[in-house]
Amino acid sequence: MTAPRTAGVAGRVNGDCPVKDATTVAAGIADDATLAVSGFGSVGDPKAVPRALAAAARDGRDLALTVVSGGSVGDPLDTDLVAAGGVARRYPYQATTAARTAANERELAFADRGIAGLSDEVRFGRLVDPDVAVVEAVAVGPGWLIPSTSVGQTPAYVRAADEVVVEVNDAQPMGLSAFHDVVVRDPPPDRGPLAVSAPGERVGESAVRFDPEKLRAVVRTDRRDDPYEFRDPTATDRRIADNVLTVLERAVDRDPVIGAAPTLQFGVGSLGNALMGALSGSSLADGELRYYGEVIQDGLLDLLADGDLAVASATSLALSVDGQDRVFDAPERYAEDVVLRPSNVSNAPSLIDRFGVVAVNSAVGVDLYGHVNSTHVSGARLINGIGGSVDFNRNAHLTVVALPATAAGGDVSTVVPLASHVDHTEHDTDVVVTEHGVADLRGKPPVARAEAIIECAAPAFRPDLRAYLDRARESSGHLPHDLSTAFDWQS
Amino acid sequence: MTAPRTAGVAGRVNGDCPVKDATTVAAGIADDATLAVSGFGSVGDPKAVPRALAAAARDGRDLALTVVSGGSVGDPLDTDLVAAGGVARRYPYQATTAARTAANERELAFADRGIAGLSDEVRFGRLVDPDVAVVEAVAVGPGWLIPSTSVGQTPAYVRAADEVVVEVNDAQPMGLSAFHDVVVRDPPPDRGPLAVSAPGERVGESAVRFDPEKLRAVVRTDRRDDPYEFRDPTATDRRIADNVLTVLERAVDRDPVIGAAPTLQFGVGSLGNALMGALSGSSLADGELRYYGEVIQDGLLDLLADGDLAVASATSLALSVDGQDRVFDAPERYAEDVVLRPSNVSNAPSLIDRFGVVAVNSAVGVDLYGHVNSTHVSGARLINGIGGSVDFNRNAHLTVVALPATAAGGDVSTVVPLASHVDHTEHDTDVVVTEHGVADLRGKPPVARAEAIIECAAPAFRPDLRAYLDRARESSGHLPHDLSTAFDWQS
Repeated sequence: MTAPRTAGVAGRVNGDCPVKDATTVAAGIADDATLAVSGFGSVGDPKAVPRALAAAARDGRDLALTVVSGGSVGDPLDTDLVAAGGVARRYPYQATTAARTAANERELAFADRGIAGLSDEVRFGRLVDPDVAVVEAVAVGPGWLIPSTSVGQTPAYVRAADEVVVEVNDAQPMGLSAFHDVVVRDPPPDRGPLAVSAPGERVGESAVRFDPEKLRAVVRTDRRDDPYEFRDPTATDRRIADNVLTVLERAVDRDPVIGAAPTLQFGVGSLGNALMGALSGSSLADGELRYYGEVIQDGLLDLLADGDLAVASATSLALSVDGQDRVFDAPERYAEDVVLRPSNVSNAPSLIDRFGVVAVNSAVGVDLYGHVNSTHVSGARLINGIGGSVDFNRNAHLTVVALPATAAGGDVSTVVPLASHVDHTEHDTDVVVTEHGVADLRGKPPVARAEAIIECAAPAFRPDLRAYLDRARESSGHLPHDLSTAFDWQS
Repeated sequence: MTAPRTAGVAGRVNGDCPVKDATTVAAGIADDATLAVSGFGSVGDPKAVPRALAAAARDGRDLALTVVSGGSVGDPLDTDLVAAGGVARRYPYQATTAARTAANERELAFADRGIAGLSDEVRFGRLVDPDVAVVEAVAVGPGWLIPSTSVGQTPAYVRAADEVVVEVNDAQPMGLSAFHDVVVRDPPPDRGPLAVSAPGERVGESAVRFDPEKLRAVVRTDRRDDPYEFRDPTATDRRIADNVLTVLERAVDRDPVIGAAPTLQFGVGSLGNALMGALSGSSLADGELRYYGEVIQDGLLDLLADGDLAVASATSLALSVDGQDRVFDAPERYAEDVVLRPSNVSNAPSLIDRFGVVAVNSAVGVDLYGHVNSTHVSGARLINGIGGSVDFNRNAHLTVVALPATAAGGDVSTVVPLASHVDHTEHDTDVVVTEHGVADLRGKPPVARAEAIIECAAPAFRPDLRAYLDRARESSGHLPHDLSTAFDWQS
């Protein structure tokens, strides 16, 4: 009955747990069931049950599942099961070609949700009412499980669901239990504050608890998460990262809140990789730097190993093959400085505020006044989803939006007159960075913001952007626009 | 030296405070100074110094002040001083014709900011660096003052400014000190959580503390705030309020978080008034209802007096002449159930979340997918500013946007294909309410949201909105739009 802090479990499946095969479990899930699944950053997601459901769908079973995941999940669900037509509704985020295509063809009823509030939305019945939670673990016992490479929304999902299916994955080392710090919040209106007082503090336990009566099945699996593959940063990536680094160095120098204990968040991908490269060896990499974000990738492990970074807190370990090998071979080496939290803690508005986080997130586009599009091309076509950027951009002490000035091989300006889809408003954007420069928007009225942002656009597009602004300024208006031509730039 | 909890101050000006006249104080303020002034909900703002500055500007003094207020302020600053051309830069909100006109003519460099984060923005130097704080009080002593009808951002502003000028207003009763609950947060990264555990809990003191060396002058005044004048709700207002009430009653019935202790926020104005009328006598008015918002107006006092409401927490007492008389004649009668907090506590994201607040805010327009415009007509012309709606809409347990379906006497639909200015994104809007219906957007993918929202539009506009949606759906895209015609509706 004991859920261990780090190890000492007598095998991975403890007590009298009903072990079944995935096909049997899948067959017992109703055709129109609502599933709440683990996974964040495309790791720690269940692998066998989604594949078994996909196989059944391909064999003609008429599935119309509703699936809410912690964050992005891997191919078993968002490629295999979605491509087999088994998913009717999907929340809150996706990052696969199959799911994106299905959403844009409106065959999949996708609804894009932020991360921090999702556990509450599911647990308290505002979004969906899950029938079955299907979650990956490294170990399970009566009324507890230990998550694998992501914690995500699992603590909320196993509470919200009527039944729980646990995939115990032998390819995920037991040592991962040393990373987790699981706390569960009481519901409003009497929930107390989150007790975490520093990015590296642990206040909870390794295990996720649930009503033991809910455990319907344990499925044994033995398959690693699909590893990340990182491309080398391009010259543009590096110029953007260098400009972000300049912003960060200035902030540490001039802003006592940031200077006291620089705490960064940035996303996975080319921006994050280039930024970690720029940080390494910079004046910020003095061992006091802290990371408080969503996802931990290889570069953060390098910064920790080199003594550049003091601590990294997130909800997901999204690693390359090499990164998996490093962590899986010696989890104890990293576990002291790496914490994996439920995503309503990793992304908690109150903690992002309390730690004075500097958020650095990418975007699809930015308009002249600082409204940011993170999700849709031409106002309509979904890319991935808003994810946690909404939590960090809103609540950070300093919010930096960093993006290449052009897309489509240079043919399209990402700096546009008016964003055709707004995910982050002008009220949240402090600094815009491209490879061409830095626009510090703080305290500036709209026209001054526009003038600063135009200097970050690619030189070839600046004259047209200036012409738009001039044309808009022919009319009165605090935030000048010429709506009749505002979208001429967007194909 | 003692700052009293409720009374007992030996006169309003205690100790060796330098009393001066407003003209002398105004003359000592640099032409290009940055002023941080009290005031929220157009009450509790300084009255004499702004008028003296306005008089000087009219007499030819070349003022180019930067002014950051707590929230909206009254005519001395935003009519007299602005109209005299004395203000060059202005934050974070305005609600006067003079300031609005100057902002839209771009003669006033206005920048619109939310409320909850503003104290930090000013105190930690990210927005402006105030030279002088000019704040109204009911009493002052060495190193402390007791605010009058609003607390607003005053605790942060007196800390941020180099010098402090206190207007002690004899027309504001000393008994107001019984309402205030002032707490001041430490800066990040080591600030703890806010200790307020219930909407009515008091954890601080009446006084705002500041370095006594900063006190440059005390100015005596004797003039009430300009009172609010409320028009009777129209038939449309009442229909909207009835629809909101239906949403609230359903929520109390079906959502255990809300049912446990319904806690509302709504804004000043016709919606708030009509909603208070609808609440009175409803099943919600059972004495357990709580208000956790920004501004307290007459109707809340009625609900308290009738035993319908348990407690009201805000940052401002914005009352009619009658309401002022009621409170000022017997403040002790109301002070037990009314708390005035600093606006970074009244609007704190963490507390809005912890109390499970239901936020009901109006808007200028809403688009088919739930993006909300609160601030700009035709994308360009500022009305007032975003104010605290951003804090509540984002962090509430249930976010209701309620607005009349038409503007301009019925000629214009407030439901539009694409919002030309986005203040609140689709990610935050749970329910849209008009006089024609209720659209519950929760869990719905974009097209289903659009179909629900169209049913809330005025009947005359529904065919064109449906035609837009049909046209947009001819192309692929998760969130269909036809950008070439999206703004045809906006003049």
